Amino acid sequence: MKTKKSKKGAKPKSINVAKAMKALRKRLGDRVAEDDNSRFNASLDNLRLSVLPHAVIQVQAADEVAVVLKLANKYGVPLTCRGAGTSATGSAVPIHGGWVLDLSALNRIEINPVARIATVGAGVVTADLQAQVEALGLFFPPDPSSKKYSTLGGNIACNAGGMRCVKYGVTRDYVLGLEGVLADGSPFQFGLPLKKYVSGLNLRDLLIGSEGTLGVITAANLKLIPKPEKRWTGMFAFKSEAAALKAVVGLFQAGVNPSILEFLDRQSVGCAERYTGKKIFEGQPRSSILLIELDGCSVEVREQRKRLLEYMLEVAAAYREARSELQAEKLWQVRRTCSQSMFSIADTKLNEDVVVPIEKQAELIRYTLALKKEIGLATPTFGHAGDGNLHVHIMYNRASQSDAEKAQAGIEKLMQKVVDLGGVITGEHGIGLAKSPFMAMQHTAPEIAVMRSVKQALDPLGILNPGKIFDPFEVWDHELVDVTLPWDHR
Amino acid sequence: MKTKKSKKGAKPKSINVAKAMKALRKRLGDRVAEDDNSRFNASLDNLRLSVLPHAVIQVQAADEVAVVLKLANKYGVPLTCRGAGTSATGSAVPIHGGWVLDLSALNRIEINPVARIATVGAGVVTADLQAQVEALGLFFPPDPSSKKYSTLGGNIACNAGGMRCVKYGVTRDYVLGLEGVLADGSPFQFGLPLKKYVSGLNLRDLLIGSEGTLGVITAANLKLIPKPEKRWTGMFAFKSEAAALKAVVGLFQAGVNPSILEFLDRQSVGCAERYTGKKIFEGQPRSSILLIELDGCSVEVREQRKRLLEYMLEVAAAYREARSELQAEKLWQVRRTCSQSMFSIADTKLNEDVVVPIEKQAELIRYTLALKKEIGLATPTFGHAGDGNLHVHIMYNRASQSDAEKAQAGIEKLMQKVVDLGGVITGEHGIGLAKSPFMAMQHTAPEIAVMRSVKQALDPLGILNPGKIFDPFEVWDHELVDVTLPWDHR
Repeated sequence: MKTKKSKKGAKPKSINVAKAMKALRKRLGDRVAEDDNSRFNASLDNLRLSVLPHAVIQVQAADEVAVVLKLANKYGVPLTCRGAGTSATGSAVPIHGGWVLDLSALNRIEINPVARIATVGAGVVTADLQAQVEALGLFFPPDPSSKKYSTLGGNIACNAGGMRCVKYGVTRDYVLGLEGVLADGSPFQFGLPLKKYVSGLNLRDLLIGSEGTLGVITAANLKLIPKPEKRWTGMFAFKSEAAALKAVVGLFQAGVNPSILEFLDRQSVGCAERYTGKKIFEGQPRSSILLIELDGCSVEVREQRKRLLEYMLEVAAAYREARSELQAEKLWQVRRTCSQSMFSIADTKLNEDVVVPIEKQAELIRYTLALKKEIGLATPTFGHAGDGNLHVHIMYNRASQSDAEKAQAGIEKLMQKVVDLGGVITGEHGIGLAKSPFMAMQHTAPEIAVMRSVKQALDPLGILNPGKIFDPFEVWDHELVDVTLPWDHR
Repeated sequence: MKTKKSKKGAKPKSINVAKAMKALRKRLGDRVAEDDNSRFNASLDNLRLSVLPHAVIQVQAADEVAVVLKLANKYGVPLTCRGAGTSATGSAVPIHGGWVLDLSALNRIEINPVARIATVGAGVVTADLQAQVEALGLFFPPDPSSKKYSTLGGNIACNAGGMRCVKYGVTRDYVLGLEGVLADGSPFQFGLPLKKYVSGLNLRDLLIGSEGTLGVITAANLKLIPKPEKRWTGMFAFKSEAAALKAVVGLFQAGVNPSILEFLDRQSVGCAERYTGKKIFEGQPRSSILLIELDGCSVEVREQRKRLLEYMLEVAAAYREARSELQAEKLWQVRRTCSQSMFSIADTKLNEDVVVPIEKQAELIRYTLALKKEIGLATPTFGHAGDGNLHVHIMYNRASQSDAEKAQAGIEKLMQKVVDLGGVITGEHGIGLAKSPFMAMQHTAPEIAVMRSVKQALDPLGILNPGKIFDPFEVWDHELVDVTLPWDHR
């Protein structure tokens, strides 16, 4: 990893910073922060690559967004939207400088419990919405691991996933309408708070997952569903990853419909066991683990549990089920510990979020083990096995140039393997900067060309989050910053 | 309704028919039909407006589609895709002539019961897929009323709905990946048979519902869910539409989660009762009706039924529940009879598919009754009250110029009312030709401009289904043809 610290954004051609800043201060002076601290805080996301913007605009109302976009458009200022900055890919980094549009103050929540629709500002924190809807007996399933911090605007811009997708789908599946502002400053409403809508071209879903490159989302109408009455959690040990992943397939064949189906490989379990000094399954050799949640009405859960145990007791080496919320919480703690404890191996974690067909996960794990041998770096892997969405990690120490090079080579090989298996290079993080070098592995040249032409159609001047998705960016060539973010627990 | 019979497609500027036809015959001679019968059959859909294409190309394999598009592109030939022609809006009519691309032979079905994913050709008939997946204990919920005839390519191109959307969502919610060909003949795969996928701009959902204007879909990967174990059907009578629609709101408040929730107004019920000569609820005055289905595991259905009846017995005037599949079928027959029997009032039915917020349905019905008085034409209405998606019909006799004018004026007023209520002019049919004059009611000028620029980006020569969605087309100025289509039951 090279040490070039890219602290200053590259200047786009047409930008006239002084003039643009003057006009911005005149229109929205009390929303504009230009101090070093504000600019640094808005310069990075969870990728920890920092590029300072010229200014941060903390809008307080949706109509201020149109003012900002008109100015950005007029002066050709790059504009990067920001919620909480939990993105893992650098999609919130203002890589070309310009302005960061901080939408976190747009945090109104309105819930219509009859229509089962919530209308939220882009800045609403995911967990805050979930708490409010659950108090009404309703449910908003998407649960990215950053949900205590991430904003719904960001979740929608990245089409966030999480653990419950295997039964409930991803963020996209819950978006009915989007309100926002186009690149030229025109307000838009794509979709409405209605359950059915087929009028005109569907730009709503085009914006979902576009990582702020096509328009600014200021509010959304979200579909809610009845809250499942009951939950059940169980944890199962297997002698090998192959056995655990075979059981994933077997569960579906047995007609089990889990709300969560998480997999942990033995490397991940080893990290957790070393970190806590305790074995997860006492008396067992180190195991690969499946963590499973069932939900629904109580009889449905009972029937599903019976079906699940009937199958699992044949194939698992050991198991434990939660008999209370507290015990369930303890089981989930195992999963969380795996993630944190990896830093005991090395100081840097490359967290990929690849997806392969669920039947091919065992082959992917065989590959991560071969890769571990080949590059000499740990490749602990866990993830959402019910979706085939595995977080493969490559752990290395940043100070070692040679380890960094091995990690980089490893990621490239992994991505190619995933595509060869019929998978996708990103299942929930998005492309941002970190995955941009692999776009051409995933998509054909005509596919990328047509995506670029759509980008051009919506953002002809290229002011919206420039540099993301399409321009291959080598994160490796840039130094990352050492900073503690609110969600860091180590 | 004027009598100009538009039997010949308008010639687009650049088309050189003779040269294009020669090249087509050379490349795909045995797929090309130019006889009058084939051209007529491909000239119309359920709107019954007929415009003859120059030729019909009955492709037998997906790679032939690329050949056709390359030629269409080279010679500037308008290209309209066709499945079964069940569209209600004229979206399958080759309004500018050119070639009709008949995809109905692409009818392969592959089902992966473990991953719960079906891969289907665009020409697969919806009901055929449903039968195959249900035999495996799986379920593909989208159920447009044309499902025995409609193809999945058409369902996806129009984002078809149906009765089960209130619980299960629309076609879009079940599409994981799309395979097809871009306007320039390049093949594409947007999305894959995977449960999570966030790589690049989401052109998959842009194509869904784009009515063949952005690309040709040849195959799709569809999400399947476990088949609900049990169903329950009940029918409830109310003294007024207002009472029935108040009960719809009340049911949601009571925590009922119906899989189907259909509403019939008294005009519709009157049609059915006159047609069959039998009262639906013996001993009751003519009633507005709710038809409700619950599904799930048997205990869930039992618990939901209890909750539903507790509420409904307080507010409904009468009810009947099905104690067998046969009895359930009889209840559904009531709904179907309403649709058919409307032709006893007049020979022409304008079938709108508007959506309003569910709490505003009573206001919409008050409006349809006021409209009935105002224009002197019947406005029987039924539909998917759980989604706020009501089929408002205006019945008139085609021979009467004055009635036709009243019907036209009525539709325009209805559309404006729907938009004023916060609704959408089309919930499941799409825009096609029939709704094109109302696009500007629904969308702002900048919204339409950006939709047009997206169309331009994907189809720069404008060869894909030209004339649809964006160009206001007055169906009224064109004579409809009198033809019996396979799904006509009168």
